[in-house]
Amino acid sequence: MSEPRTTVPGPAVAGPAAVTPTSVTGDLPDGLLEAFTGYEDALARNDLAALDAYFAPGESTLRGDATGLLVGHDAISGFRGARSGTLARGIRSLHVRVIDPRHAVIVSVNTPDAGGAGLVTQLWVQGDTDSWRVEVAQVAAPPAAVNPTVWRLVGTPLVPAATDTGPLAGETVAVKDLFDLAGFTVGAGNPAYLGEATPATVTAPAVAALLGAGASVRGVAQTDEFAYSIAGDNEHYGTPPNVRVPGGLPGGSSSGPAAAVALGQASIGLATDTAGSIRVPASYQGLWGLRSTHDAVDRTGLLPLAPTFDTVGWLTRTPAVLRAAAAASLDPARQVALVPTAAPTAAPEDALTNPPARFAVSTALVFAADDDVQAAFVTGLDRLIRAGLLPEPDLVDVGDLAEALRIFRAIQTAEAWRCNGDWVTAHPGALGAAVASRFEIASRTDPAAEAEARVAMAAARARLDAVLDGRILLLPSASSTAPSRHANAATIDATRTATLTMTSLAGIGGYPALSVPLFEVHGKPVGLCLVGPRYSDLALVDVGAELAAGG
Amino acid sequence: MSEPRTTVPGPAVAGPAAVTPTSVTGDLPDGLLEAFTGYEDALARNDLAALDAYFAPGESTLRGDATGLLVGHDAISGFRGARSGTLARGIRSLHVRVIDPRHAVIVSVNTPDAGGAGLVTQLWVQGDTDSWRVEVAQVAAPPAAVNPTVWRLVGTPLVPAATDTGPLAGETVAVKDLFDLAGFTVGAGNPAYLGEATPATVTAPAVAALLGAGASVRGVAQTDEFAYSIAGDNEHYGTPPNVRVPGGLPGGSSSGPAAAVALGQASIGLATDTAGSIRVPASYQGLWGLRSTHDAVDRTGLLPLAPTFDTVGWLTRTPAVLRAAAAASLDPARQVALVPTAAPTAAPEDALTNPPARFAVSTALVFAADDDVQAAFVTGLDRLIRAGLLPEPDLVDVGDLAEALRIFRAIQTAEAWRCNGDWVTAHPGALGAAVASRFEIASRTDPAAEAEARVAMAAARARLDAVLDGRILLLPSASSTAPSRHANAATIDATRTATLTMTSLAGIGGYPALSVPLFEVHGKPVGLCLVGPRYSDLALVDVGAELAAGG
Repeated sequence: MSEPRTTVPGPAVAGPAAVTPTSVTGDLPDGLLEAFTGYEDALARNDLAALDAYFAPGESTLRGDATGLLVGHDAISGFRGARSGTLARGIRSLHVRVIDPRHAVIVSVNTPDAGGAGLVTQLWVQGDTDSWRVEVAQVAAPPAAVNPTVWRLVGTPLVPAATDTGPLAGETVAVKDLFDLAGFTVGAGNPAYLGEATPATVTAPAVAALLGAGASVRGVAQTDEFAYSIAGDNEHYGTPPNVRVPGGLPGGSSSGPAAAVALGQASIGLATDTAGSIRVPASYQGLWGLRSTHDAVDRTGLLPLAPTFDTVGWLTRTPAVLRAAAAASLDPARQVALVPTAAPTAAPEDALTNPPARFAVSTALVFAADDDVQAAFVTGLDRLIRAGLLPEPDLVDVGDLAEALRIFRAIQTAEAWRCNGDWVTAHPGALGAAVASRFEIASRTDPAAEAEARVAMAAARARLDAVLDGRILLLPSASSTAPSRHANAATIDATRTATLTMTSLAGIGGYPALSVPLFEVHGKPVGLCLVGPRYSDLALVDVGAELAAGG
Repeated sequence: MSEPRTTVPGPAVAGPAAVTPTSVTGDLPDGLLEAFTGYEDALARNDLAALDAYFAPGESTLRGDATGLLVGHDAISGFRGARSGTLARGIRSLHVRVIDPRHAVIVSVNTPDAGGAGLVTQLWVQGDTDSWRVEVAQVAAPPAAVNPTVWRLVGTPLVPAATDTGPLAGETVAVKDLFDLAGFTVGAGNPAYLGEATPATVTAPAVAALLGAGASVRGVAQTDEFAYSIAGDNEHYGTPPNVRVPGGLPGGSSSGPAAAVALGQASIGLATDTAGSIRVPASYQGLWGLRSTHDAVDRTGLLPLAPTFDTVGWLTRTPAVLRAAAAASLDPARQVALVPTAAPTAAPEDALTNPPARFAVSTALVFAADDDVQAAFVTGLDRLIRAGLLPEPDLVDVGDLAEALRIFRAIQTAEAWRCNGDWVTAHPGALGAAVASRFEIASRTDPAAEAEARVAMAAARARLDAVLDGRILLLPSASSTAPSRHANAATIDATRTATLTMTSLAGIGGYPALSVPLFEVHGKPVGLCLVGPRYSDLALVDVGAELAAGG
C-alpha cells in the first residue's frame, strides 16, 4: 500500500449516484465506488436480493457485528432475511485503501437517520465476472441506550450496595423481574402485568442478602412471562442474545439475568428455578448456575410460579462469585458437607481433595438428551475419570422418568394456575402464545389429580432419597444445546419436554442443582449438572469448581 | 481470493505462543500468525510501544470502534495512551483471508475475561522491513449494559407515556438529572448528593407535559454537577461522547441529554439552560436546542442553580420534534408571533414565508468567538442571505459585553450559593475540582455587589429590549467548536468565559434562544443561535426550521 495519494478534506457527500472519498491510498479501481454506493442504496431499499448479490458467494465470506460473526454467504443471507425494515443513513466519511486493482478495503462512517454514527469496514474483491463483491465486513451500528431484550431497567447502579466492603464488593446483580425492589414495580415479563403493578415497599430478602454482602443492583432483567418457560423468548420484549451461540436461544426463564452475565453487563444473575429456569440458560450460555435447595432461601417478595418447586438461585461466569453469592444468601448452619457413604471405587492420588463425594449416573436420564449431548456427556465424564478428578460413578435407577414428569407437571400446573389464574383470566390476550397455551392447560387442572400427584410425589421423593443415598447425581444440564431462535414451536416444545424430563427430579427432591460449563457440542456449550442432597449447595459448588479447575 | 484451503473445525486455541486459525483462504504467509499473536500479547500487557509498532506508520492507518474512527498513526497512538489498563482476553475463532503474500485480512472473535464477546477485523500488511503491521482495524468490544457517562438510569421505558396518542407519541425523553420523577431520586451529577436524596413524590410539570403529550421517559441522563459548567465533563461519572466530534467534549451542563439524543438513544433531551447549558451542547454536537423564555415553563420540581436565569428547554435531532416538545410545554396563549417592526431591507421573493422577521447582528458578540467560528458564522450568514432566506441583518450595539457578563455572574454566583451553599459546605471534597472552584468563588459573594448587579441588570435588560426592538439577534451558539476532551483546565476556562460572554445576554433579557445546527468548522458543528423576544419560543423554532430547510 502506498502513501495517501488523494485526500479530499471535509465531509464526504453521499447519495445513490455519487460519493466522494475522504481519503484514498493507491489507484482507485474502476467500479469500486459505484459498487459501494450501490450497496448503500440496496441497504436503503432493503433490497435483499441485491444485498445478497453484493456479498461474495461461498463459505469463506464473513460478516460480523456486535451480536457475533456469520461465516458463509448462506448464514449472512439468513440473518438478513430475518431482519426487518430499511436502514436510511448518510455517509459522513469514506476511506479507501486500495491493495491491488482487484482488492480494496473501504472504511466508512455512516449517519443513520435515527441518530448516532455507525462504522463499516469492508474487504471488496473484484471477481471473475468483474463485479465487485464484499468478502469480509464488520458492521457497527450505533449502540442502543439499553438492550430491551435483556433489561427492563438499568442504573449505575439501580440500587447501591448496602456496604462498601463485604465478600461481594464490586459485584453487580441482574435481578430477574420477579423479585421486589423497594420503590420499583415487578413486571414478570409481561407489559400488562407491569402496567398494573404498584411499587414494592420492601426489597426481597434474596436481593437484600446480596446488597448486604457488598453487591449493587445493576438492573432488572427480563424473564419469560411469569417464569413459565425454559426457552428464553418473550413475545413482548424479544429474545435476548446468546453470546456463546449466535442465533441461538438464550434459555429461560431466567433469560435476562443469564444474558446480562454472559455479556459481562452484570456479574451475578439473581434468578429462580422451578423446572430448570437457571440450569437451562446456564447450560445454553456456558455459565455457572445454581438452583438452591428448596426453601433454603427465603422467597418473600418473589412472585411465585409453583411454590412447591420454586427456588432462588444465581448465574455467574465464575465459580468463586457463584459461591460467594450463594454463601451470602444461604444459612450456613443448615448447609451440609458431602461425605462418602462408601469408599470410592477408584481413588487416584490427585482425586478431589475438597469434600470427597460419591457420584451417580442414571443412564435413563442421559438417554433423555439428544445424541450429541449424550456423546459430549459420556466423553466428558470419561475424561474427568481418566484425569483422576472423578471416581467412576455408580449407575443408579431413578425410577420411571415419565411418571416423575407427570407428577411434577400435575403439581406445577395446579400451582401455576392458583398463583396466576385470576390475573390470566382477567387479561385475555395479554400473554404470548406459548405461555398462554401453558396456562390454558393449567386452567384445566383436576383437584383430584393434584391430590394424587402430591401423594405420588412424596413416594417418589423418598425413593429418590434412598437411591441417591447422599451421592451427587451427574447428568447433562439440558437435553440439547441452545436451539435456534428460529426453531418452530413444535421443536421448542419437544426440547422442553426432554429437558423437563431431566430437570424435574431436582424439583421433586427439593435438591440443589449446579450447572457447570464443562462440555461443548460443535462449539456450543452444554452444562454438566450436579444434583446433590438437600442443603449441600455450597459443597456442590466446591465440587463443581474442582472438576472445572482440573477438567 | 481462492476457495477455502484449510478449515480447522472447532474453537481456535490461543496463547502468546500459538494460535490455530479456524479457517484460512489462500496460502498463509510466514510470520502473519506470529504477528497476530504478538499483537494480542502486547494488548494483554498493555505494552504501548509494542502496540504502536504493530500499527503501520503514516497518515493513512485507520482504527475504528464504537466511539468513532481514528485516522493516522498519531491519532491512534494518542487514543491508546489515554486508555488505561490491560485487556485480558482469549481468542474464540480466527479467520484468515490471504489476499497476496504481503496482504491479509484477519477476523477474530475474542472472549474478554470480563464477559461477552468482541470482534476485530484487521488488514495486515507486510512492509518493506518484512514485519507485518495493521493498516486498518475495526474493533468491537462487548457492549456495556448502559453508558454511565450518558445515563444514570434507563428503562424500557423508565416512565411510560400518559397517553398512547398525542403529538409526542413514540418519542423518548432523556431527562436531565435535575428534574423530579415520582418515585425516583435526583442526583444532580454528584454521587454524594444522590446518596442522600429521597425519592420525589410528584413528577415535575416540565416532565409531565411531555408525558401528557405521548412521550415516554427513556431515562435519567447525566449533568455537570449542579448544572454549574458548560464543558460537559463530570469527574464522577465521566465525559459523555460527542458523536460528531470523536475525542471532543460534549458540552454541558446538559451533557447527558444531548449525548443521548445525538446517539439516537432518545429523541428529546429535557434540559435546563442558565448560562448556555442547552445552547452549548447543541452547538458542539450538531443538535437543535431551545432555551425557553425565562418563566415560560414551570420550574417546580427542578433543582435550581440560579433562578433569575434558570430556564427549561429541549434538545432534539429535528426541528419538528423540538417544536412539538416546546408546544406541549409552553402556554400557547402567551406565545407571540414575530412581526417586523419595519420592512426588511431586502425582500427577495422566496424569502421566509412563515413569520417575517427582522434580524440583528452584534459584531462585538461575533468577535467574542474564535477566528474559525467567526469565519463560519460570517460565511454561513452570507450564504443564507444570498439564498434569499435571510434579509440583511441590522448591525446593533448590544452594549458593553464585559459589563453584561459581570452583572450576569454576580447574580448567578450569589444565587448558586444561596441554592447550594449549605450542601456544598456540608460536603467538603464532594465536588469535582472545576465545579468546586466555581462554588468557592460563589461563596465569597458580596450582598452589596449582588444588589448593585440587580439594579444594573434591570437597566441592561431595558437597553437590550430597546436595541433589539423585536428583532432576532443572530450569533454563534458558542465561542468555539467542541474542545478536546484532553484540553487543559486553563483552555476550558478561557472557552467558558468567551462562550458566557456570548450566551449571558439571553439570560439578562430572559429571552428564548435557539441553536440551529447549520454551520461547521473543519467538519465540527457549530450552531447558529437565534435570540428572540420573550415568548417568541415557537416562532423562533419556525424561523430556524425555515433557515435550515433552505440552507
